[in-house]
Amino acid sequence: MRVGILTAGGDCPGLNAVIRAAARRLMTHGHEPIGLRRGYRGLAEHDWIELDQRSVSGILHLGGTIVGTSNYNPFREEQGVEKVLSQQTQDPLDAVIAIGGEHTMMITRRVQEELGIPVVGVPKTIDNDVTHTDYTFGFDTAVQIATDAIDRLHTTAQSHDRVMILEVMGRNTGWIAVYAGIAGGADAILIPELELTVEEISAAIARRHERGKDFSIIVVAEGAQLAFESGDRRQIRTSDDVDQYGYPRLGGIGTALAVELEERTGYETRVTSLGHVQRGGTPTATDRMLATRYGAKAADLVMAGETGRMVALHGTEMTSVPLGQVEGIKTIDLRYLELARTFFG
Amino acid sequence: MRVGILTAGGDCPGLNAVIRAAARRLMTHGHEPIGLRRGYRGLAEHDWIELDQRSVSGILHLGGTIVGTSNYNPFREEQGVEKVLSQQTQDPLDAVIAIGGEHTMMITRRVQEELGIPVVGVPKTIDNDVTHTDYTFGFDTAVQIATDAIDRLHTTAQSHDRVMILEVMGRNTGWIAVYAGIAGGADAILIPELELTVEEISAAIARRHERGKDFSIIVVAEGAQLAFESGDRRQIRTSDDVDQYGYPRLGGIGTALAVELEERTGYETRVTSLGHVQRGGTPTATDRMLATRYGAKAADLVMAGETGRMVALHGTEMTSVPLGQVEGIKTIDLRYLELARTFFG
Amino acid sequence: MRVGILTAGGDCPGLNAVIRAAARRLMTHGHEPIGLRRGYRGLAEHDWIELDQRSVSGILHLGGTIVGTSNYNPFREEQGVEKVLSQQTQDPLDAVIAIGGEHTMMITRRVQEELGIPVVGVPKTIDNDVTHTDYTFGFDTAVQIATDAIDRLHTTAQSHDRVMILEVMGRNTGWIAVYAGIAGGADAILIPELELTVEEISAAIARRHERGKDFSIIVVAEGAQLAFESGDRRQIRTSDDVDQYGYPRLGGIGTALAVELEERTGYETRVTSLGHVQRGGTPTATDRMLATRYGAKAADLVMAGETGRMVALHGTEMTSVPLGQVEGIKTIDLRYLELARTFFG
Amino acid sequence: MRVGILTAGGDCPGLNAVIRAAARRLMTHGHEPIGLRRGYRGLAEHDWIELDQRSVSGILHLGGTIVGTSNYNPFREEQGVEKVLSQQTQDPLDAVIAIGGEHTMMITRRVQEELGIPVVGVPKTIDNDVTHTDYTFGFDTAVQIATDAIDRLHTTAQSHDRVMILEVMGRNTGWIAVYAGIAGGADAILIPELELTVEEISAAIARRHERGKDFSIIVVAEGAQLAFESGDRRQIRTSDDVDQYGYPRLGGIGTALAVELEERTGYETRVTSLGHVQRGGTPTATDRMLATRYGAKAADLVMAGETGRMVALHGTEMTSVPLGQVEGIKTIDLRYLELARTFFG
Repeated sequence: MRVGILTAGGDCPGLNAVIRAAARRLMTHGHEPIGLRRGYRGLAEHDWIELDQRSVSGILHLGGTIVGTSNYNPFREEQGVEKVLSQQTQDPLDAVIAIGGEHTMMITRRVQEELGIPVVGVPKTIDNDVTHTDYTFGFDTAVQIATDAIDRLHTTAQSHDRVMILEVMGRNTGWIAVYAGIAGGADAILIPELELTVEEISAAIARRHERGKDFSIIVVAEGAQLAFESGDRRQIRTSDDVDQYGYPRLGGIGTALAVELEERTGYETRVTSLGHVQRGGTPTATDRMLATRYGAKAADLVMAGETGRMVALHGTEMTSVPLGQVEGIKTIDLRYLELARTFFG
Repeated sequence: MRVGILTAGGDCPGLNAVIRAAARRLMTHGHEPIGLRRGYRGLAEHDWIELDQRSVSGILHLGGTIVGTSNYNPFREEQGVEKVLSQQTQDPLDAVIAIGGEHTMMITRRVQEELGIPVVGVPKTIDNDVTHTDYTFGFDTAVQIATDAIDRLHTTAQSHDRVMILEVMGRNTGWIAVYAGIAGGADAILIPELELTVEEISAAIARRHERGKDFSIIVVAEGAQLAFESGDRRQIRTSDDVDQYGYPRLGGIGTALAVELEERTGYETRVTSLGHVQRGGTPTATDRMLATRYGAKAADLVMAGETGRMVALHGTEMTSVPLGQVEGIKTIDLRYLELARTFFG
Repeated sequence: MRVGILTAGGDCPGLNAVIRAAARRLMTHGHEPIGLRRGYRGLAEHDWIELDQRSVSGILHLGGTIVGTSNYNPFREEQGVEKVLSQQTQDPLDAVIAIGGEHTMMITRRVQEELGIPVVGVPKTIDNDVTHTDYTFGFDTAVQIATDAIDRLHTTAQSHDRVMILEVMGRNTGWIAVYAGIAGGADAILIPELELTVEEISAAIARRHERGKDFSIIVVAEGAQLAFESGDRRQIRTSDDVDQYGYPRLGGIGTALAVELEERTGYETRVTSLGHVQRGGTPTATDRMLATRYGAKAADLVMAGETGRMVALHGTEMTSVPLGQVEGIKTIDLRYLELARTFFG
Repeated sequence: MRVGILTAGGDCPGLNAVIRAAARRLMTHGHEPIGLRRGYRGLAEHDWIELDQRSVSGILHLGGTIVGTSNYNPFREEQGVEKVLSQQTQDPLDAVIAIGGEHTMMITRRVQEELGIPVVGVPKTIDNDVTHTDYTFGFDTAVQIATDAIDRLHTTAQSHDRVMILEVMGRNTGWIAVYAGIAGGADAILIPELELTVEEISAAIARRHERGKDFSIIVVAEGAQLAFESGDRRQIRTSDDVDQYGYPRLGGIGTALAVELEERTGYETRVTSLGHVQRGGTPTATDRMLATRYGAKAADLVMAGETGRMVALHGTEMTSVPLGQVEGIKTIDLRYLELARTFFG
């Protein structure tokens, strides 16, 4: 079998570990892995690279992806479908392993259903918000990086009445914020799934400081929103909001929250915004193991002819689900937030 | 309720995170956590420390244990049982949360069954070999440290015909060796669960180098044994073996293997023995989260009166099992080793 | 001798290492070290803690300061001088070791000259901009943290036409930006000592991308200013500028630069702002060694009666200079920036 | 000019940073850098690789060396000199930049003096024992790795009467042992430069524990020797000693010391032997800066025609010395050991 492997969407620690595992597994069984360059563009434009022992050697710990990535969607690009079908006629692949987020899983399902190419999907997001799998690779690394930052903020926050805000990734869900907040010992956590008003946060900080704590560390997911008792609700990350509220396009909710908290509490407030530092670089051991298991399982499914599926982690078992079932976003189990609250105040 | 918390046995990253979580959880619900100093000795000798907000603050990320540890077994120590019962009469605790390994779980069960003190156990081992739970805290940290070491060995191994041996913990099981071996990309892994002869390993290394690889990284669990085709089986960690085979008491299997491999392959061989570096220091974010969940769950069980149980992780759920069920050792699922083999050679 | 040790100003990795070294050195020679709580406030208000073997044990690697810090200036505070003199009459110290920045060195000189208390100063700033010493402790840690961030940004930047901006500390000087920029392989570095216009930066980025590089990493010191060809010069960190230009008070120059660059180049631009993460947490080995040498030397000077001096590193030698000579700011040697330029483009 | 760049001897973090800096510096000035494969072998056998923008891109943070290394000595290999001269006749290089240890510096001097090829040497050793330069690159990384290990040992050592031994690199000098010992807070340090008897060490440990300390951390350089009051002196690293004393060839002095200390003190003793973990992997920011400065300076010297010299760090200045002056070994300034002693006991 000749099996194309591609990565789509944003960077995520562990992509190369998935590629290596899938490729090595296929090679071990006598099959031929092919790297499709820059996501589905590589499929449409026959932009291939050979994946042999040498090319997948020494990449396990590297960030990034050796096959490149893009957001190319053959169903949206002009002639995208025609190009894919034409390539399949001239130089066919027996299957495609597609590593990407929820959107890529949806495209991948259509590639099998509508274009007839057997596919297996591998869920990829540092946000951990893909449904039907316990954890996605990259998440553990992002949480570790955010936790390291909280550790460092702890000592420097220990000065009178100072508030430290750490803005972490999480556009739609608070997984990173809550996990890192618990692992780092945050004093408050703001996430998209739960609305807190600025007034409530200010009051909590003030109560905490009145009880003798002279600093607070707040972890905020980039997708959290600032709400106000007046009923306003400021989604501050869109460019419209810049004009409307005077917040910057790129300054982020951390900055906006700092402005509001300083005004209300009078405490000196500082912001750390980790940004893409959470997406790059070497994966943790846990993510390398998970990515390796995902990659090997994807190859196993292809070799067993069980396509149209996404590999998934359930407990300690590597399993799979039909791609058709994968939709929506896995918001955080609020019991984790309840656990985090045990340590607030 | 007044609840004693104790840690027993060797060091393990995350002990303080468990203590903090259990204590904070109890405080939140109006109960009084007590730190029993140095394991069950603290129970027998009424050696208590107060666990309040202040004493469990700032310890989440610290290695070691703020309540101390020991291997004190009230059922073995002279007057041990009498002392415990006497203390319980004079100044009773309503329950005990005991954090320890398999042996401690066994003692803990007897403390409830025979001495009538309600108990909850929290499994503790970096080796991940406690049964009835998916993972134990401390394991992730040990694997990460070993993986970091493999990463560093990779560049320096890339010299002609050199073999690097990394000896990691794992007296009875190969969990750390296999996880770190997969995460670090080892070329061979030796574990207690599976016997390989020195001749087989030498041959595998030789084949690999003949195929053009000019270095090999071998991860070996401290409890693995050297076997020989002649039928010998050298357990090299006992002092008797020193005399018999000339290996040192403390040199470990890594050193022994190096001697044998150099002799057989002629390749320069170097050993790194991580030792207790794997047991100490700050836990990974994953271990802090797991330890926090264990500690909070233990407190929840105590408060719900569900004692005589060990907290356990099943999939993403924190649950519990009767202490009576906890026995034996959880050896590694050999499918992990099979996965590791995909990348050998 | 009874010698007070104090820390003043902001947090800096290595403070505890200095305190420990000075205290242990004094104890070894039979003297009595005293911790003055929260900077010079501890001297004025007789807020002392004992520094014995136990209290300085296990603090070498810890961020923060066990004696607390503040910006208390006895010459500015009401009755400050009177309080200090009164305390010295009632319960005199034989000398004070003051660990702080340029401003603290100035106060410290006056404490000896005007209040008659023998002093030794230890220079403290992560910014490395104290004159008369080669390096200050804390700087190496800040550079390492920033370099780690650049490493992670590198993989995730490798996508088409993306610009990553890392804002690091350095209010008046570009030491951290230039060192981390060289160590991390930045493609452009903006510092307070050298004005570049937004147009020049945009043009450099565009040229780079036209030559086939599809990403750029820019390190910018927080104190760098945005200049424009029109002759404007936007110091964007004051609140006045918020109103005038629409930039946020706390968003920082990184955000402002991102807005301007995206407008001019059309490339997707992302910002990471490390903030106080650079100030806290465990010091690097290099900073611990330097801090230890500073602390021991300060004690040696006190014991030798060579007071009124600041300890200093010259080459490999630990030496000292009169406090009166310490003034102004050590801007970066532009040869380092010239070296960095070798790798731009 | 066409300038060959080579690396010789063992691995050292920062080699790629030197290569990159020298190559980029030469390119910037219109010259042509060439990578000589596997040390002087590449010169003798015309085994060259092109060093252009692309090949030296993305290597700054990588361990190992992209041009390979060996111990090839043209003055020792058969026909070595003839081969070099023949290659120079057919396809001459204008100069060679040789990165290596003391031995390589000696060969490099002869290459210029006897073979007429202009050379510049760059000192390379993690041991920091090259004369005429303050620090060598790779040393800071080795010290950081050893210090991290001591940090982790600290928490796990805190159990009754336990001794932790960390064996670090340093065949002839104690630089790594002393620096890491001070940075990590060791309780005893054994180095090649200073003889301590096993009885003295045992007595010091015993005194310490009698004073209430219940653990000790000992850092020992691999080249330190075990001496005995009887006047014996056991150099335990040669194979002869294995037979004579029963110590293993590869077990190292750490193991030997553990055996002796356990016997004398009765305290449980554990050994960590870091081995080549100290030589590999990504360099610290400090080492990257130093390596970059060394590489750029080497290129500058070549371009200025100032050959026959070794680049050197003096204070904050990058300078150079004649290769003829570089000989012998820079043993540690014993004042550092005296400083370390402040914290013993």
